[in-house]
This record gives sequence, structure tokens and C-alpha cells, in this order.
Amino acid sequence: MTEIEFGAGLWNFATYLDRYATDGYGEPRSTLAQIDLAARVGDIRWVDLNFPFTDGVTLDDVKAKLAETGIKAIGITPDIYLREHMKGAFTNPDPAKRASAMTRMNDAANVVRELGAKYVKIWPGQDGFDYPFQVDYKELNRLAVEGMRELASGHPDLKFVIEYKPREPRTHMYWGSAAKTILGIQQMGVDNVGVLLDFGHALFGGEAPAESAQLLIDHGLLWGMDVNDNYRGWDDDMMVGSIHMVEIFEYFHVLKKNGWEGVWNLDQFPFREDAVENARLSIRFLKAVHRALDLLDEDALAAAQAKQDALGAQKVVQEALLQSMAGQ
Amino acid sequence: MTEIEFGAGLWNFATYLDRYATDGYGEPRSTLAQIDLAARVGDIRWVDLNFPFTDGVTLDDVKAKLAETGIKAIGITPDIYLREHMKGAFTNPDPAKRASAMTRMNDAANVVRELGAKYVKIWPGQDGFDYPFQVDYKELNRLAVEGMRELASGHPDLKFVIEYKPREPRTHMYWGSAAKTILGIQQMGVDNVGVLLDFGHALFGGEAPAESAQLLIDHGLLWGMDVNDNYRGWDDDMMVGSIHMVEIFEYFHVLKKNGWEGVWNLDQFPFREDAVENARLSIRFLKAVHRALDLLDEDALAAAQAKQDALGAQKVVQEALLQSMAGQ
Amino acid sequence: MTEIEFGAGLWNFATYLDRYATDGYGEPRSTLAQIDLAARVGDIRWVDLNFPFTDGVTLDDVKAKLAETGIKAIGITPDIYLREHMKGAFTNPDPAKRASAMTRMNDAANVVRELGAKYVKIWPGQDGFDYPFQVDYKELNRLAVEGMRELASGHPDLKFVIEYKPREPRTHMYWGSAAKTILGIQQMGVDNVGVLLDFGHALFGGEAPAESAQLLIDHGLLWGMDVNDNYRGWDDDMMVGSIHMVEIFEYFHVLKKNGWEGVWNLDQFPFREDAVENARLSIRFLKAVHRALDLLDEDALAAAQAKQDALGAQKVVQEALLQSMAGQ
Amino acid sequence: MTEIEFGAGLWNFATYLDRYATDGYGEPRSTLAQIDLAARVGDIRWVDLNFPFTDGVTLDDVKAKLAETGIKAIGITPDIYLREHMKGAFTNPDPAKRASAMTRMNDAANVVRELGAKYVKIWPGQDGFDYPFQVDYKELNRLAVEGMRELASGHPDLKFVIEYKPREPRTHMYWGSAAKTILGIQQMGVDNVGVLLDFGHALFGGEAPAESAQLLIDHGLLWGMDVNDNYRGWDDDMMVGSIHMVEIFEYFHVLKKNGWEGVWNLDQFPFREDAVENARLSIRFLKAVHRALDLLDEDALAAAQAKQDALGAQKVVQEALLQSMAGQ
Repeated sequence: MTEIEFGAGLWNFATYLDRYATDGYGEPRSTLAQIDLAARVGDIRWVDLNFPFTDGVTLDDVKAKLAETGIKAIGITPDIYLREHMKGAFTNPDPAKRASAMTRMNDAANVVRELGAKYVKIWPGQDGFDYPFQVDYKELNRLAVEGMRELASGHPDLKFVIEYKPREPRTHMYWGSAAKTILGIQQMGVDNVGVLLDFGHALFGGEAPAESAQLLIDHGLLWGMDVNDNYRGWDDDMMVGSIHMVEIFEYFHVLKKNGWEGVWNLDQFPFREDAVENARLSIRFLKAVHRALDLLDEDALAAAQAKQDALGAQKVVQEALLQSMAGQ
Repeated sequence: MTEIEFGAGLWNFATYLDRYATDGYGEPRSTLAQIDLAARVGDIRWVDLNFPFTDGVTLDDVKAKLAETGIKAIGITPDIYLREHMKGAFTNPDPAKRASAMTRMNDAANVVRELGAKYVKIWPGQDGFDYPFQVDYKELNRLAVEGMRELASGHPDLKFVIEYKPREPRTHMYWGSAAKTILGIQQMGVDNVGVLLDFGHALFGGEAPAESAQLLIDHGLLWGMDVNDNYRGWDDDMMVGSIHMVEIFEYFHVLKKNGWEGVWNLDQFPFREDAVENARLSIRFLKAVHRALDLLDEDALAAAQAKQDALGAQKVVQEALLQSMAGQ
Repeated sequence: MTEIEFGAGLWNFATYLDRYATDGYGEPRSTLAQIDLAARVGDIRWVDLNFPFTDGVTLDDVKAKLAETGIKAIGITPDIYLREHMKGAFTNPDPAKRASAMTRMNDAANVVRELGAKYVKIWPGQDGFDYPFQVDYKELNRLAVEGMRELASGHPDLKFVIEYKPREPRTHMYWGSAAKTILGIQQMGVDNVGVLLDFGHALFGGEAPAESAQLLIDHGLLWGMDVNDNYRGWDDDMMVGSIHMVEIFEYFHVLKKNGWEGVWNLDQFPFREDAVENARLSIRFLKAVHRALDLLDEDALAAAQAKQDALGAQKVVQEALLQSMAGQ
Repeated sequence: MTEIEFGAGLWNFATYLDRYATDGYGEPRSTLAQIDLAARVGDIRWVDLNFPFTDGVTLDDVKAKLAETGIKAIGITPDIYLREHMKGAFTNPDPAKRASAMTRMNDAANVVRELGAKYVKIWPGQDGFDYPFQVDYKELNRLAVEGMRELASGHPDLKFVIEYKPREPRTHMYWGSAAKTILGIQQMGVDNVGVLLDFGHALFGGEAPAESAQLLIDHGLLWGMDVNDNYRGWDDDMMVGSIHMVEIFEYFHVLKKNGWEGVWNLDQFPFREDAVENARLSIRFLKAVHRALDLLDEDALAAAQAKQDALGAQKVVQEALLQSMAGQ
């Protein structure tokens, strides 16, 4: 059994608000306080940090806190989905807004360098549209692809990952599926842009997450991943394994089979839950999944898959998964 | 052609935030500024007001502003979905939180009296659950029903309407469908609780909104309604008619057929749009629907429906709807 | 650990066709051959039989086969969704079609008497509508309720259960949700009509199946149930536990907590799978669920639910479920 | 106003069955009878024919009937989704089944030559999977792509179009989205495979159909299209315009803007409706859409889209659409 490394988006340890609870589900927490909470979980070795940091927190502060806690930065996620870019970052119709988004992302790239992180994570949640007839799709595509190309070309020493999602906060996000994101990256013609696959986004988008993982791996583009869970109709960012035990197990099985070695990264929004306990339980479940991978009768599974035998596959899967906590 | 009266939830004229654009899609607006915007639309005669009003705005201020603009209060919607009640208002596991929600709603009831509004609107968005096994459903039901009974019983001179919705911000709202809400109201055994039917909530919940309207009317419980639109998978609160032209037309046809006379109330969240223009276009569309109702060949439709003849019905419907703007 | 009794809709052992594979996913099987397959599973004690039986099979044949295999009839499901009733059974606009459906159901009632089954199961899959404006909802409701009242009143010695489902083959089924079905049964004013809750139908309809079970129990109407699984967007009738392990576990927990004692009945369509193996694996999983119910720390769960503590509940649930096959 | 040419899948004029109404929604109709019905519609110039033809109908019969009615073959759709290929055509785990599917498709290619049709339409509805863990995704991809390459390479004089769809009859179809299909076609490395875009499949798959049209056009792959409507959750194949008037209008607007000139092809399943009337009403609506395209203020729309102004766009769209039947 190989070791897994666990990580988390730092926002797992923030507090949240939404369009109803406008005063927030808790007191705001600083970037440093969030890192402290991440450290309290006990298994988290990596964090993906929102940038800019919360008010008054400097890069040196963050460096010091990471050093203190022994946590490393896996990625930096620039905030390009706030009011300034509510009509888009790359695809904003206003060139000045596109420019300010580019500045923000260039700054984030520098932080990646400073912290020695693995990637700049681009999640352009406001890039897309809401209504039929609102946009010229050809132009939207041009802006999305050219902007990303410009960004990546400016930092050939760094890696960028796009995190796709079908929708929210837009009713339609431009980078909406695994396959469409691959097509866009091809159009860019650069070699330092890949994909961060969020299990829940794939599920929400009607994809089989394990199939999307294989597709991205086959295109050499699976450069990062996040896990969580949801009810398929929305990006609920719930505790991993709380709903889709079998499909998350299959997802990790595909990663293992392909020799994919990367951080198992949490992306959850515990609106009303304790953030540390939420992460701990998630990791406890992921460890059970990891054990189940070792319990899995790979030969029997391969034999079933060769015949596309759904029942044969279910049998070995249930045997492994449903005893993954025995003796723990 | 009878006159229609238009109204709007005052939040149509607010600004919004969500879990990503945490700095909001615009500068906050006071209750008074929101009423001014409602007045600028030109056709809005009624507003449903969030309570408490925004900081520093008194009841007298609101009375004066309503008098100045000639707009009346149709309802008051107490804020029982903020941080204080993030785990529920009626169904919060903490009795102190339930008590503070009750106080808030009793205060709202007094404002209804003061403003001569038609109803206290109860939207308990945080009453429900997120995860499997999180709640004891029997207990959840008890709390939801007993709390509402207590509230309504305390104000026998007033009307209360429950606005159901399948989910958001909870993954499962307790008052989640038309039929379940009727069952709950029956259990209460009071006669001053009815339903506010939001067209988009019914659509989102997999209901045929026109069928839900009929169901509520047949139970004597359709006491208010809101209109908007969405893509069925979420409560997008988009401009009415932007997606579901035929189904909104059917919805108003059912209301007309039953002699339902009430305010045509907007419930839309123009996150990135101009609030006044959003309301104006919505009302323009609703007037087209109103004309289409008069253009509709009712005899032909009734004949088609007697045979459950889908094509015959579509024919007369398209004829009416697709010429509803001619000559305007 | 109490004994569970397993059953199955006999159609679990049929072959199927659909609108594409019009020549069927296998050779047709007679009612008797289906019972033989059910018997081969080894744990099935009850079957729900489609009526009429397949060509040439008599009631005496069925009696003999049941006696031979030691299987009992739990219910009879009259075919009221074939070509003759493609526009509805109870709600067909043609009185002659309604009459022929009634005859078919009365005949099924007699078979229930003859076989000593527990109920006549009514699944009016063609009762509903497809298009907006196609039906007068008030009239649809009248026909659905009056027809069911007439049927049930004619057989006061028998029990009838309605199996609701949101859609398919209609885009909208009249008996579409747990709550709406309860309302319809209330309107009937009879005491021999209850509900058969299909886990997958509830899931497909956006209900939390465990909550629907509690709702039906609280109304004294949960008289039967079926289990299976799906991806929430359709009634896929897949192997139970293949997708929603946690929610099916919660469902059975609610049944146990309420002292509900009835048959655990399979309702699956193994289009491309071996029917016997499909049932065996399903039952194997259900036995694991049953063990998990005994492993569950009920006190800890109750304590978590009293606080609506999602994480606390998940913890004890995962501990029980994820070791339910250890040592088996 | 340019002329439009209308066509229809010949199955619009067939009768259907499904897993419940196993005796079918009407008496079976021969290929020739279906062509006669298509001719009765009055506007249909093209048909896409299922192959093999119904029992006893020869190619010469079909040629004669087409000549008699003045209707041309736009495409041939080989039946590769019947019992023989219930586990897949290209991706069937059994090489013998893959071979028989290939034979069937080669035969269809010859019919395309004989009839001078525009394309062989490939709809591999059984290629995919149903359960998690059932298939090795890499192998599924290999079989799907290599098989299609082999087929197309064998007929360099012909065009092939793949019709993608997210699911049904499989819970997951391999060719499931526009973008994924483009990726697969790229992998084939042939130049005679394109895409047939079905409006309803795109909608069902969570795509904005107009955006998918633009994406396919930009890749030079939009070689055919079908229209219909649905409720987004399933491929209901309803009358075009019955639900999504605005989005179908946008779809045709994108086609027009790109100078796409091809047949407006119906793909509808009037299970319980009159097939001829169903097609007539659909074409009547499509003609209204065509008029609306001419009524549309293109400059105002372009100005709105340049600003991504949803409201401005809605305004001109509603003006055009809602008077498209005036004076007709």
C-alpha cells in the first residue's frame, strides 16, 4: 500500500455566505487562521490558497505560517470571480476588466513561484453566460482561449490548471466539461495548461467522473484533482463519500490503474459544519477507500470488465468496499 | 380584458452576493432606495418587503416612502434564514434559535398590521437538512408544523403564506413541494395559513406549475404567487418568459380559468442586470401573456383538453402566444 | 437480528424491450418460467405477479407453480399501461377505455383473493399527460380519484396500493409523489387504499426516500415497498446498492425505527444482465445492509440527530456500513 | 427570406413500443407506409431511413416509393441497437457482435450509395455502459474510435455522421456530448466523419444547443441536424417548440449567422399522437421561427451581444418571436 498525500483547498477552512445568509455562516477567518485549522486536521500536507490573501496578510506571513505548520502550497487560486469580474475574467466584454483579471492572475503566478507551488489554478466561474441569445459563442470562445493562451505564454516556467464546472455562479460556465476543456487547451497551442478535475463537478455535469479521469489522463492533461460529493443536481461540495461511495471508489481505482500519483485534495464547503471535523471525517473515508483499493480483487475485476459484466464487477467492488473499515 | 396588478418582491431591486462573489454584485441598497427603484418601473403597485428593513430605516420611513410612491405592501418576509438561523427557524435543534425566529416573525406580523399588507410570507429556507441520516424526519415534521401552528394561532387576524421550494440554501428544504405543504397545513389545523406559489420553485421541483396552481386552488390555499424563470435544475430567478414561454402561459391560463384574482408578483434576482430594466421587460412580457390569454380560442382549447389532445391544444396555444406582440 | 423476508416483482425475471431494442433484450419468458427463475435465487419467498399472466398460463398453473416452489404471491399488478390504455386507465378521456381498465383491475382483485395475496398493486403509468395545456388538471384529478375510489369500494375485503412515480412512460404521471398520493387517497375517503413506496421512484422524484417512508408511515399508508437503484435522473431500476449505498441504508433504518415489518421487495430491470444473478447480488447487498443495521450505534446516531449533526451521523453510519461484509 | 427544406427521420411516422406498452402504441407500419405518411405532411422533402427496411420491403420498393412521392433520402440509419447488439455495436465485448454490426453498417453504406443519400447516420445507442466499474474506459474508447475509423475508411466516397446523446438506452452512451464526439473524431484521423446534432440531445445533455452548433461549425463538423423538444431530463422527442421556443429560435439563429444551409430535420416520437398532424404542426412552428429570424433586429441583437447584455438581447428576441404568427 503506497502512501497517499492529502491536501485541501484552503477555503475548506473558511466561512461562507450565500444569497440568503448574507451575513455569513460564521465569522470571517484570515488566511493564517485557515492554515492553522488545516494543520489541526492532522493529515493535510498541502493547501491550495485563494489569492489575494485576506486583508492584511502578506506573502511573508503565509510563508512563515506554512513553515510553522509544515504544510506546502500545492496551488494558488486567484480570485477572478468577485464583483470586479462579475461579467467574466477572460470573457468579460469590457477590455479593462479583462486586463485587471490578467493582472490578478499574473500576480498569482508570482506567488506560485515564491511558494514553489505546483500550479496556478484557474477557475473562471464568471466566464460564461446566463440567458439564451446573451452572447456570441464564437467570440466567447475566442476570448476564453486567447486569454488563457496569453496568460500561460507569459509564464512558461509555470503550470496552469483549469478547473471546469458546468455552472454556478453563471447558469452556463464556459469551461463546462472535461472534453470541452481539452478542446480549448488544444486550441491554445501551449504546453503548460492542464486540467484540475473536481469529482463533484464531473458528477454534476452528468459525466462519469472515472471516465473523465481516464479521458484527461489519455490526453496527458490530468494535473490535479479535488474530491467532495453532491446530489448530482448542484455543486454541493459535501463530505466525500457521503452520497457516492461506489463512484468515488471507481474514480480512485482509475487513478491507481493509470499510476496517477498526485495529492488527494479536498474541495468541500462545510457551511454549517465544523471545518476540521469535516476534513477529518473525509480523510478517514478516503483512507477506507485506499484500503479498499488494496482489498480489491483486481484479476476478478479485470475479468469482469473484459466482458463488460456489470454484476461481476459489482460483486468484487462490494466485497472490497463493504469491509474496508473492518478491524480499523 | 381585465386589469392586472403587478407587484414585486422588493429584493428584485436589491443587490446580491453569493458564495463566490462575496463582495457582492453591486453596492448595497437601502430599503428606501429599493422602493424608489420599484417605483421607477412604472407598473408596480405592490411590493413584498424583507424585514427587518436595511440598517437605519424605520417603519415610519417605509410608510412615508410607500405613500410618496403610491406603492402598497402586499406582504412582509421576515429574514429567518440568516446566520442566526442557519440551522433552521422552526426546525432548528436549538430551542433558543427557534424562539428568536419566532420573535422575528411576530415582529413581522406587526409590520403587516401596520402597513395593512395582505400576508406574512414565511420562507423557511434553512429548515430542512443536507445529509442522509442528519435528521429524524418525524421530529423535523413535528417542529415545522407545531411552530407554524403556534405562529399563526398567535395572529388570528392575519394571513400567513408559506413559500415552498425543493432546496437551496439547504440541499433539502422541509417545505419542498405543493402537496407536502398542503399536508403540513392540514396538520396545523388552523385557517389562516396558505401557500405562496413561486412558478420557478414548482418548475425546479419537477412539478407542472399550472397543475400545482390547480391543486392549491382546489384546496383553497393559493393565496399568493411569484413569477420568474429558470432552467429547471436550479432556482435561477431569471426574467419571466426567458425560457418557459409556454408553461408560464399555461400557468396564467389556469389562474384565469379558476377566476383567481391576485397580484402578478415578480421574484427575480438580476445579479448582473439592471434591476429596473429587468422588471420592465418582465412586465412587458407578462402583458403579452395577458393579451395572449384574450387571443386564446378557449372553446377550441376546451375541446382539445376534453380529448387530452396535445396537438390540438398546442395549435391554439401557439396561435395566441406567437402573435401576442403584433401591433404593440 | 430479526429475519427479513425477501420478495420480487416477477418482472425482475422477465425479458424486456424498449423503443430501440424493439426485438427485445431476450426471448420472452412465460409467467411460470419467471417463477422458476425466482425460485432459483434461493431467498425469494414472495412475488408480485403481472396480470394477465403470459399467454396460455392459467390461474391453476400459477397456483401449482407457486405451491411447487414454495413462493407466495404478495401482490397482483394488473397491466393497465398497454396499448389499450396508452392514454390512461383511470384518466383516459374515453369512458370505454376507463371501463376496460376497471374490468382488468376487478379481475386482478379476484386473483388476489384466489391467491391470498396481500394487495392489488395499481401502477397507472399511462395516467397523466405529456404536454403543457394537454389536460384540464381538475378533471384529471377527478377521474383519478373517483376511479380509484370506485375500484377500492368494490372490494372492501381487499387492500389496494398505489405505486407512484414522477414520470415514464408519460412525461408527467398523475400519481407522481408521496405527498400528492396521500392527498388523493384522502379525497377518496376509503380505508383500503395505501401506498407502495419504490425507493428508486422517490429518488428519481427528488424526494429523500427515507423521509418519504416516514411521511407515509405517519399517515398510516406505507403498505408495501420496492427497492432498486438509479442515477436520480431516470427510473433505471438498477441493482440495489450499486449507486446509493448510504441512502438505501438510511431508508431501511427508518423502516426499522418505526417497526415497519414487511417484505423487502426487489423491483429491478436487468435488461442486459442475468436475472438470477442480479437478484442474488441484490439480496447479498441487502443482507449486508441488514447486518449494518445491527452494527449501527443507535445511541450515537440518535444523539447526532438530536443536534442535526451531519458529521456525527455520517461517522457512525460509515462505521457500520463499511464493515458490513467483514467476516462474511 | 431564403427557402428552407424540411425533412424527417422516417421513424417519425412509425409506431413505437416501450418497456411498459410492450404491445406497442399502434399497429406496426412498413417502411413504405411510413414514406406515404411523410408525403402526406406536405412539406417534407427528405427522409432519413432506418435500415434494414421493414419485413419484405426491398430497396427497389423504396426507390419506387421515393420516386412516386418526390421525397429524397437524406441519410440511412442502420439498426445497430437491437437485441443482437444490446451490449454494443462498436464497443461490444464480443468480436463476433462487433463484426455483425460492421456488416450491417457496410450494407447501410451501400444503400446510401444506391439512393444517393447525403450520409450514413451512426447512432450507437448501445455503445456505453450502465454501472460504475462495468467497463475499462480506455478500452471502450479504443473500440469506439477504431471501429468508427475502420468503417469510415472502408467508404472514402461517403460521409458518416455520428449522432451523440448522453444516455438511453444505456445509462451512459459513449458518444455522449458534442465536445467528446469531436475529440473522438480527431482521434480517428479520417475526413469523412462528422456530427449530426440533435437539438434535444444537446438540451438533455446540459448543453446550450446553440453553443454546441457553433462549436461543431467551428470544427467543420456540423453535417446534419435534428429538431424536437423535451423537458431537459430525458430525450422526450416531443413536438419542436412545445417547450423551448426561445432556445430553438436561438439555435436557428446561430445556424443562419454561420450560413449553415442544410435540411431542417424532424426527429420526434409521437407515441400517442397522430404522426402526420405532429409533423405538420412542427413545420408550422418552424416556419414561424423562420419568419421570426427575418423579423429579428440583427443590429440591435449584435449590439446587445457585444456587451453580453442579456436584457437587450431578450427584448429584440421577444419582439421577433412573439409576433411571428401575426397575419399568417
